[in-house]
Amino acid sequence: MPDQPVHPTLDLTRDAVQLTEDLVNIESVSGNEQAIANAVQHALAVCDHLEVQRFGHTLVARTHLGRDERVVIAGHLDTVPLNDNLPARRDDGALRGLGACDMKGGVAVALRIAATMPEPNRDVTFLFYECEEVEAERNGLSKLAASDPDLLQADFAILMEPSDGVVEAGCQGTLRVDVTTRGRRAHSARAWTGVNAIHGAGEVLARLNAYEPRRPVIDGLEYHEGLNAVFITGGVAGNVLPDACVVSVNYRFAPDRSVEEAYEHMREVFDGFEIELSDSAPGALPGLSVPAAAAFLEAVGGRANPKFGWTDVARFSGLGIPAVNFGPGDPHLAHRQDEFVPLEQVRSVEEQLRTWLGGQA
Amino acid sequence: MPDQPVHPTLDLTRDAVQLTEDLVNIESVSGNEQAIANAVQHALAVCDHLEVQRFGHTLVARTHLGRDERVVIAGHLDTVPLNDNLPARRDDGALRGLGACDMKGGVAVALRIAATMPEPNRDVTFLFYECEEVEAERNGLSKLAASDPDLLQADFAILMEPSDGVVEAGCQGTLRVDVTTRGRRAHSARAWTGVNAIHGAGEVLARLNAYEPRRPVIDGLEYHEGLNAVFITGGVAGNVLPDACVVSVNYRFAPDRSVEEAYEHMREVFDGFEIELSDSAPGALPGLSVPAAAAFLEAVGGRANPKFGWTDVARFSGLGIPAVNFGPGDPHLAHRQDEFVPLEQVRSVEEQLRTWLGGQA
Repeated sequence: MPDQPVHPTLDLTRDAVQLTEDLVNIESVSGNEQAIANAVQHALAVCDHLEVQRFGHTLVARTHLGRDERVVIAGHLDTVPLNDNLPARRDDGALRGLGACDMKGGVAVALRIAATMPEPNRDVTFLFYECEEVEAERNGLSKLAASDPDLLQADFAILMEPSDGVVEAGCQGTLRVDVTTRGRRAHSARAWTGVNAIHGAGEVLARLNAYEPRRPVIDGLEYHEGLNAVFITGGVAGNVLPDACVVSVNYRFAPDRSVEEAYEHMREVFDGFEIELSDSAPGALPGLSVPAAAAFLEAVGGRANPKFGWTDVARFSGLGIPAVNFGPGDPHLAHRQDEFVPLEQVRSVEEQLRTWLGGQA
Repeated sequence: MPDQPVHPTLDLTRDAVQLTEDLVNIESVSGNEQAIANAVQHALAVCDHLEVQRFGHTLVARTHLGRDERVVIAGHLDTVPLNDNLPARRDDGALRGLGACDMKGGVAVALRIAATMPEPNRDVTFLFYECEEVEAERNGLSKLAASDPDLLQADFAILMEPSDGVVEAGCQGTLRVDVTTRGRRAHSARAWTGVNAIHGAGEVLARLNAYEPRRPVIDGLEYHEGLNAVFITGGVAGNVLPDACVVSVNYRFAPDRSVEEAYEHMREVFDGFEIELSDSAPGALPGLSVPAAAAFLEAVGGRANPKFGWTDVARFSGLGIPAVNFGPGDPHLAHRQDEFVPLEQVRSVEEQLRTWLGGQA
């Protein structure tokens, strides 16, 4: 164990709502997961029915019951940056705070199942991993797939990303491009002798404002694309025309497009500008016809929605493992300052998983 | 003397071109003037005809000959940021490098006059000061005007800013406003649930691109205004719609407008947006009818151009002291990566000043 300093304590015998609150109160912005990973590791270490391994701030906990089927139940431990939304607080039947929705409610449910079901009817591989909210190369699941792919082998995977307690199938892909405009520096008092690169970015923003995102229907599910500037930066000094401006654009694309097709589309949209791909992850087609996925869908109500956000279902999809999103919390609230998770949904998602795994409802 | 570590040596008995080169090779980006100020202080300290005082990294060197008239000859020691343009190099009769034009050529001439003319026909106050290229509150001349206004008293002032060896009269004012657009954060995969503040800045850039700067004629001199974004910044994370974007805009305005009128104009241009004034300095009307200014103009050829860039002539103007710009170097090259100063102009400006002060041409 590379690091085991003082850490917060998690009591996995208490209810999932309390556990969600405790998890939210351990700040874990991407890159800062040490404390929460320590707490999770410590809490799982006392479960004799689990083999627990740690990789960086990613934890793998597995049953070894010799069942016919093995399923993955996974959740990421990190959150987007703080936005004046900690500590957690409860009101109106909801728990509010950074990560309440995305996705400490789902992590709490997975931890509860892991700790309290010593003999599930399927072998389970629980994954609690780091750096899902940042670039793909830092993603804990991605790193695990590269270093120890055997640990991810399963017949089916459930990612406990917020999905309003309804199965969400497939996921949209994502990529980021840096669109750079160039100029020529000059003293701002004699602007006519230079070229202002920030002004040049006006056309980039105009194209973004005019862009009409696609909404293709795939396997009966309507996806919804998006094209957004997520960063903009330019400037040299308060009296100098800047010679460069960079607009970082995030394209979320429906799973009928590959990363290559999506990048080609960016080249069309920003035709005439210098663009560079900085990050990408493919989408995943819904795949609900695969038997293990269909069986799970049937067990939890038979209904599915399309998944808009990119999630790690695409990584399982890439490994040939059918995967769905199923977790508490409205996915529309993810990454919003006012995100929350309904207490009742945390409880009902736990019950549905518990029943599916052969436990008492 | 608060600081006198090891410093480069300046030999003021060598020619002004060599001195310009030596000054360029002492990197002195605003805020980093300690080394150059030490070198200047050390070089002037051996001149028995001068009283030398230091304030921060600003130096004041005065003759006390009891002449009827006192004139200020001033130059700033700092430069805009490095842009892969050091060390200095000579070619084609020019010296190239950061600060060669703006304004180490002028500083070299002033230092030469200070060191080699022990008995000028007018008393002279030489000023070599810090932080001209950054916000007004850090400006060494401005600080001196506040702390020791008596030191600036004079009948006339010459700022040795680059003016192509021709008197430049008046100067344009400058102000900066931060134009902020607001949005609402949301996960970029569900962009329709948020508002993208960077996209909102598209309209700010569109107004800048559409803006037609004024070119008013004042006292026979045509000024030329400018409105430019000098910084832009926005973004929270690679998958989050940003809730704020700030465009810093620099307005250079002709001296027929006060700071207040210029700011009011910004409120009109950016009507509907949140704007905040972050920095300002008034312009200066040409003022060539003042006797001391007219006499100097006559002595150096009788020709004057309008000054586009803001310079500290406005500060002298504010103190009731007529002031002009007169220095070697094309002002259009100031702040450009490829700035240079013609060697011949450095020499001819020195000669004209020397003659005006009663020396041998």
